[in-house]
Amino acid sequence: MSDDHYITSEDPDHPANLIPSLCAKFWTLGWVTGTGGGCSIRNDDLVYIAPSGVQKELMKNTDIYVLALSKQTDLKNRVYLRSPPCGRPSQCTPLFLAAFTKRGAGCCIHTHSHWAVLVTLLLEAQGPGKDKLFEINNIEQIKGFGKGFQKQGNLGYHDTLRIPVIENTAHEEDLTEFLEEAMDQHPDTYAVLVRRHGVYVWGDNVHKAKTMCESLDYLFQLAVEMKQLGIPWLSDIPVTVPTSRR
Amino acid sequence: MSDDHYITSEDPDHPANLIPSLCAKFWTLGWVTGTGGGCSIRNDDLVYIAPSGVQKELMKNTDIYVLALSKQTDLKNRVYLRSPPCGRPSQCTPLFLAAFTKRGAGCCIHTHSHWAVLVTLLLEAQGPGKDKLFEINNIEQIKGFGKGFQKQGNLGYHDTLRIPVIENTAHEEDLTEFLEEAMDQHPDTYAVLVRRHGVYVWGDNVHKAKTMCESLDYLFQLAVEMKQLGIPWLSDIPVTVPTSRR
Amino acid sequence: MSDDHYITSEDPDHPANLIPSLCAKFWTLGWVTGTGGGCSIRNDDLVYIAPSGVQKELMKNTDIYVLALSKQTDLKNRVYLRSPPCGRPSQCTPLFLAAFTKRGAGCCIHTHSHWAVLVTLLLEAQGPGKDKLFEINNIEQIKGFGKGFQKQGNLGYHDTLRIPVIENTAHEEDLTEFLEEAMDQHPDTYAVLVRRHGVYVWGDNVHKAKTMCESLDYLFQLAVEMKQLGIPWLSDIPVTVPTSRR
Amino acid sequence: MSDDHYITSEDPDHPANLIPSLCAKFWTLGWVTGTGGGCSIRNDDLVYIAPSGVQKELMKNTDIYVLALSKQTDLKNRVYLRSPPCGRPSQCTPLFLAAFTKRGAGCCIHTHSHWAVLVTLLLEAQGPGKDKLFEINNIEQIKGFGKGFQKQGNLGYHDTLRIPVIENTAHEEDLTEFLEEAMDQHPDTYAVLVRRHGVYVWGDNVHKAKTMCESLDYLFQLAVEMKQLGIPWLSDIPVTVPTSRR
Repeated sequence: MSDDHYITSEDPDHPANLIPSLCAKFWTLGWVTGTGGGCSIRNDDLVYIAPSGVQKELMKNTDIYVLALSKQTDLKNRVYLRSPPCGRPSQCTPLFLAAFTKRGAGCCIHTHSHWAVLVTLLLEAQGPGKDKLFEINNIEQIKGFGKGFQKQGNLGYHDTLRIPVIENTAHEEDLTEFLEEAMDQHPDTYAVLVRRHGVYVWGDNVHKAKTMCESLDYLFQLAVEMKQLGIPWLSDIPVTVPTSRR
Repeated sequence: MSDDHYITSEDPDHPANLIPSLCAKFWTLGWVTGTGGGCSIRNDDLVYIAPSGVQKELMKNTDIYVLALSKQTDLKNRVYLRSPPCGRPSQCTPLFLAAFTKRGAGCCIHTHSHWAVLVTLLLEAQGPGKDKLFEINNIEQIKGFGKGFQKQGNLGYHDTLRIPVIENTAHEEDLTEFLEEAMDQHPDTYAVLVRRHGVYVWGDNVHKAKTMCESLDYLFQLAVEMKQLGIPWLSDIPVTVPTSRR
Repeated sequence: MSDDHYITSEDPDHPANLIPSLCAKFWTLGWVTGTGGGCSIRNDDLVYIAPSGVQKELMKNTDIYVLALSKQTDLKNRVYLRSPPCGRPSQCTPLFLAAFTKRGAGCCIHTHSHWAVLVTLLLEAQGPGKDKLFEINNIEQIKGFGKGFQKQGNLGYHDTLRIPVIENTAHEEDLTEFLEEAMDQHPDTYAVLVRRHGVYVWGDNVHKAKTMCESLDYLFQLAVEMKQLGIPWLSDIPVTVPTSRR
Repeated sequence: MSDDHYITSEDPDHPANLIPSLCAKFWTLGWVTGTGGGCSIRNDDLVYIAPSGVQKELMKNTDIYVLALSKQTDLKNRVYLRSPPCGRPSQCTPLFLAAFTKRGAGCCIHTHSHWAVLVTLLLEAQGPGKDKLFEINNIEQIKGFGKGFQKQGNLGYHDTLRIPVIENTAHEEDLTEFLEEAMDQHPDTYAVLVRRHGVYVWGDNVHKAKTMCESLDYLFQLAVEMKQLGIPWLSDIPVTVPTSRR
């Protein structure tokens, strides 16, 4: 019996349609070059994931895996409700599941954006002790981020955005333990950088994950350009208040 | 009773159709990344504005707010003729209204272009007293700007384009007072840079606002690249006149 | 009586259709930002030109001017067979006509590409006497250029591509005299750089003008990047010959 | 009698349809600017190649050459089963055939990507003895490459990707001997850089050639940016293993 009903819908916002259209967009942004990177959406207890090794701008709904998520879900023993005829499950799967189970995320995006990679290389060049955290403040785009897990509202202009950096592992699945560790140490972060690899970004829903991922890529690009121009990422800017509110 | 007639038209140049198509274009230019930035159009006494927090490349006419503009319009007490079913008014609203009421503009565009942000950072690095004005001259693209409010014609190749820079505030609405101050001090400018944030550009109509915004972004990019190559923004170039006109 | 038959055709390769589709493509390449730049096609004695000040990605066939070209054509006294209802003739018109009358070109493209502008700025920084000629050799893409006016074949890999640079004038029409002078001094060039402004590129037909313009922009970008990396534009590379041909 | 049946199919994945759609995509990536670069697909004993000098984003199935490949195929004496009405065979033809005959490749892509050219220039600047091999390691995207000819699996994160560099020749066909030499010396490579020219990338099929070409361009861009930021291409990174697997 076919399980195609899980991935068949005329609604463009159905996860099985949305993942391909998002991935095509991400390809034009240089985020998922050469089958790298990916995207997963959770809808209640169902998780939709693209397979490993597909050309992201050519993906179709029929390429999508569907998993059942339950309290008993073990990141290693997964229950696939639907598997595409050909293809292997993505090595990113346990990392996406970590965002869903530990943070209740509704969407998780993984990019190989070279801005993200360059930021991790620039941090690495600062030497041990200074290479585990990307920090930037006093940039308007920082307002694009939520304050943190189960908190209301967004960061402010003067707040410092902090994104932890974990070391890359030979096997992508092995990143899971370190990703979860970073989540524990930085409970409010919505993203984790992976050295020499890319970034994982999640959010309560597709809208939030995607716009935070865009904002973060904007900030990574800006950070690299600031470095090239000799401008520091952290600054001490006095608060400006209009006369009428002083 | 529905107020959808304000935003329903088959004319692609109707403001409620034009704002979404412009914003989609701006998204591809990197101007409105991650819901940042925006665009507003005034048609006589009606003002059309996109809501806060929408993905700009996905915007629809049904997302648009419509305001009534009158001589009594208070920037804080606005009369909404039409509000989208969900969404919050944009924090840019009073800034757009300032361009409409103080300059009679027909369109105002706000971008988070990282070229604009980098220019404000480069000026900041020059220290107090030199950080409040972006100046460039002797570049052909400068001709893309009008001479100023209620003046005929455009700047010339040898003219210096001057764009004031205001400091960013924690709350975007608080920028309004400083934007108006910059308009008063630079009565001929069609744009104001906001430090570490982006730029506001306006014009008599959509065509003028959009082409000036493009020209300005071109000049900001050029300015950053000139700085990287050690070429100054201001130069003293002798006027070249053909023999036949000497 | 309407003169719309000059610009009405279902053939996508008709000049009145081709100019808009080319200009839309050039807009995405950043060549005609903010109404800058343009494109003109000659078909026997008819010349098709876009008006001044239009948004290049939105241009339509109905925007096109049609001129009659004859041996008696004076660059200043032009005979318009068809004028768009609104719009002014492009200031580039006499420059396009110069390429048609002095070189028998079939197409002329004018871009404001910032790579072109940066190349003229880098040459300017080298000081008087070294600022009037862009030269590059030993790059495969150089093969994209014809050997010169009424000559057969293309440049070779080891040949030096030379593009003259003229100074910009306050009024674009005043460039004509200098453009013609540069054509006289460099009879084989298919392009002239304009300092702090852009480049004019022409060819026997649309195909040649467009592909040479692309190749030139590629080389300008490469030249700027080479400068940033400390790599000289001219080099002395020994000729490599396979054993079988020694 | 027409030989158009070789290039007529409604299947978008037929080589005669796929080459034009791939080339249009490559044009937007800046890989085949100004008619440079190209792409060839082998299907059993049939080889499909685009002609020389076409605008790659405008190519049609009717532009395609079809060759017969047999054990007796001499790279110089080729049997054309179908030739387009106008056009010359691509000078890349013997280079594509080398990938098909010596490596059993199913697709070969040639780009003029300026990232590839810049990498060869940066290597050249390191002086003789250090200029013949591009090497990079400890970047996730390296996993996008197969281990080598007739080997199973892909490179790992810590493996060093090595791409040989050959010198450019005045005539593109003369590159063939050097390309084959590089294949002999580096039996596991899927790509060869050509100094001041570009890169040839091949794979068992279109999917593999295209995704490896994308990954390589990503790495070339990253390598240039790393050089600008003073970060070395080769590094000694300790292997990270999760606690659960120690």
